[in-house]
Amino acid sequence: MTMTAFFADEERPHYPAHFLVNGNFEPNPEHPERVDRLLTGARAAGCTIKRPAEFGLAPILALHDPRYVAFLETAYERWKRIDGASAAVTPNIHPVSRDNHYPDSIVAQAGWHLLDASAPVAAYTYESACWSAWSAVAAAQCVLAGERAAYALARPPGHHARQDAAAGFCYFNNSAIAAQTLRAEHDRVVILDVDLHHGNGTQDIFYDRDDVLTVSIHADPSRFYPFFWGAEDETGRGAGEGCNLNLPLARGSADDIFLAALDKAVARIGAFNPGAIVIALGLDASEHDPFGGLRVSTKGFERIGAAISAAFSGPAVLVQEGGYLCDALGDNLAAFLSGFSGNS
Amino acid sequence: MTMTAFFADEERPHYPAHFLVNGNFEPNPEHPERVDRLLTGARAAGCTIKRPAEFGLAPILALHDPRYVAFLETAYERWKRIDGASAAVTPNIHPVSRDNHYPDSIVAQAGWHLLDASAPVAAYTYESACWSAWSAVAAAQCVLAGERAAYALARPPGHHARQDAAAGFCYFNNSAIAAQTLRAEHDRVVILDVDLHHGNGTQDIFYDRDDVLTVSIHADPSRFYPFFWGAEDETGRGAGEGCNLNLPLARGSADDIFLAALDKAVARIGAFNPGAIVIALGLDASEHDPFGGLRVSTKGFERIGAAISAAFSGPAVLVQEGGYLCDALGDNLAAFLSGFSGNS
Repeated sequence: MTMTAFFADEERPHYPAHFLVNGNFEPNPEHPERVDRLLTGARAAGCTIKRPAEFGLAPILALHDPRYVAFLETAYERWKRIDGASAAVTPNIHPVSRDNHYPDSIVAQAGWHLLDASAPVAAYTYESACWSAWSAVAAAQCVLAGERAAYALARPPGHHARQDAAAGFCYFNNSAIAAQTLRAEHDRVVILDVDLHHGNGTQDIFYDRDDVLTVSIHADPSRFYPFFWGAEDETGRGAGEGCNLNLPLARGSADDIFLAALDKAVARIGAFNPGAIVIALGLDASEHDPFGGLRVSTKGFERIGAAISAAFSGPAVLVQEGGYLCDALGDNLAAFLSGFSGNS
Repeated sequence: MTMTAFFADEERPHYPAHFLVNGNFEPNPEHPERVDRLLTGARAAGCTIKRPAEFGLAPILALHDPRYVAFLETAYERWKRIDGASAAVTPNIHPVSRDNHYPDSIVAQAGWHLLDASAPVAAYTYESACWSAWSAVAAAQCVLAGERAAYALARPPGHHARQDAAAGFCYFNNSAIAAQTLRAEHDRVVILDVDLHHGNGTQDIFYDRDDVLTVSIHADPSRFYPFFWGAEDETGRGAGEGCNLNLPLARGSADDIFLAALDKAVARIGAFNPGAIVIALGLDASEHDPFGGLRVSTKGFERIGAAISAAFSGPAVLVQEGGYLCDALGDNLAAFLSGFSGNS
């Protein structure tokens, strides 16, 4: 089996050069060059690259707050009007609760809609985020049209973005949008997130719902991004109670521990009996990733891909999440896709 | 009438040199030199300067979360252990709700306990904040001991600090601590906040209580700090419903508009029939203040002080809040104190 990979060149130009961490502005690791490494990896796995259609705002607004979408579209132009403002929209004040008053000021709207300082908004952020989301929609539609699987080379990534806010290099939640697109024909959809970081935005979007099971395997967040979310006791709420599964791993965990967690994920997914699956395909659990949180090998990614594919033979949309510049990045994608496709 | 002013030299050394605004690190306007200007103003109004006693943590813990107090005590030392961290603790990620998981990491605790990037924590922050709070306790005790009024030269200021978080150059809420101290002998206490900025921390601390009426006159927050709080429809909650009054003013308002709002404040205070009052005495509504939000004149501050004193003849604690470096700062304090004391 080979897969179609969806990607548009408009996903490239978004690039706020810096983000704030530990009180300093540092180079942004979510670099456009990731795209080239990932394209190389996708091609190595036999993928054909296709451009997604321009799907408009409907699939984005199906999950995201219209006020947030409007903010993302206009924020950079409004920010530039502030005398002496920095090159990218950076928040400096945040509400305590969503019950607080929604402000008129761009500075305060930035704090409302940017949960952290690692989601700055620059000139092409909105455009790239739209095309990233559309790559996920295209992959989901490809699968709805009968393909067993498709891959969205989604940049910027999406799984930290919640209904009304960006975070952690993520603006629109591409994996969630893919899942919602699949819901058109499938009553129950799973999102399985294998990114190094907990998929807090995805969890939040579906936290009250029982039609989308969200599962995330990630580095223990008590001392790791996103810190406030990703613990085992976050299991869903109301109708969604029991429909969120977090599997935090100790820092430095390697292939076997990751695969053991995947066994638990797969058991839960099987019990849910989904019609389709979205894999939130972060590659930053790699032992070579600059974030250094886990130690999954390239062979490990192949085993993870194969294990998911063996456990669930239904339609699957693979949506790129994190995974940062390192020599192994393309190989890790190729390994995962090959493992999943049974071509390894 | 002349007043005792309480001040300790330990309030000086706190000085994070920069804060983040509009995406840039800018010089911190909450400069220790404010103390010298304010001491000059207090002396010009006939005040005797006294050192507060060291009251320990009890009056602070009466209102602030123990976890927050422990954070403030230890944050700077823990932050310094991060390789390459900035000179002062600066948050870069925040929870969405207080229901989120409390993290172990200093980076994430900084986001929990620092609501915005204008409350960085440096080497002497905790010590200065404690002495600032103790100056407010001393002024309240002076009034409990029989003086009609006393002034706390409280630095850093306090009114943006909430139960569990610093914000806007404020760490412990000195005015709230003074009010709580007065509660030992008075069933009903008012806090009247005349700072340029809404006293959101004070509002929050007492929002559910009916024993402390909080009133704030300030620049309209919809496009002005603190943005998310300070609107007229924030009136209290539960038992505290009706015990919070916000009087936002259009930007650029001068003496007469401020005094008209004060009439409304005074009417509400009279109806509450308090045993004692705390004046959260910001001086940044000055026409000369670098924040430039309102245009109160030096003579205006004298009229404001006189009007409050005429309307309420009971015990009063005046607690310094904002008011930044400008030639008029000391004169504005002297004018307010003289107006209040009837010495003008």
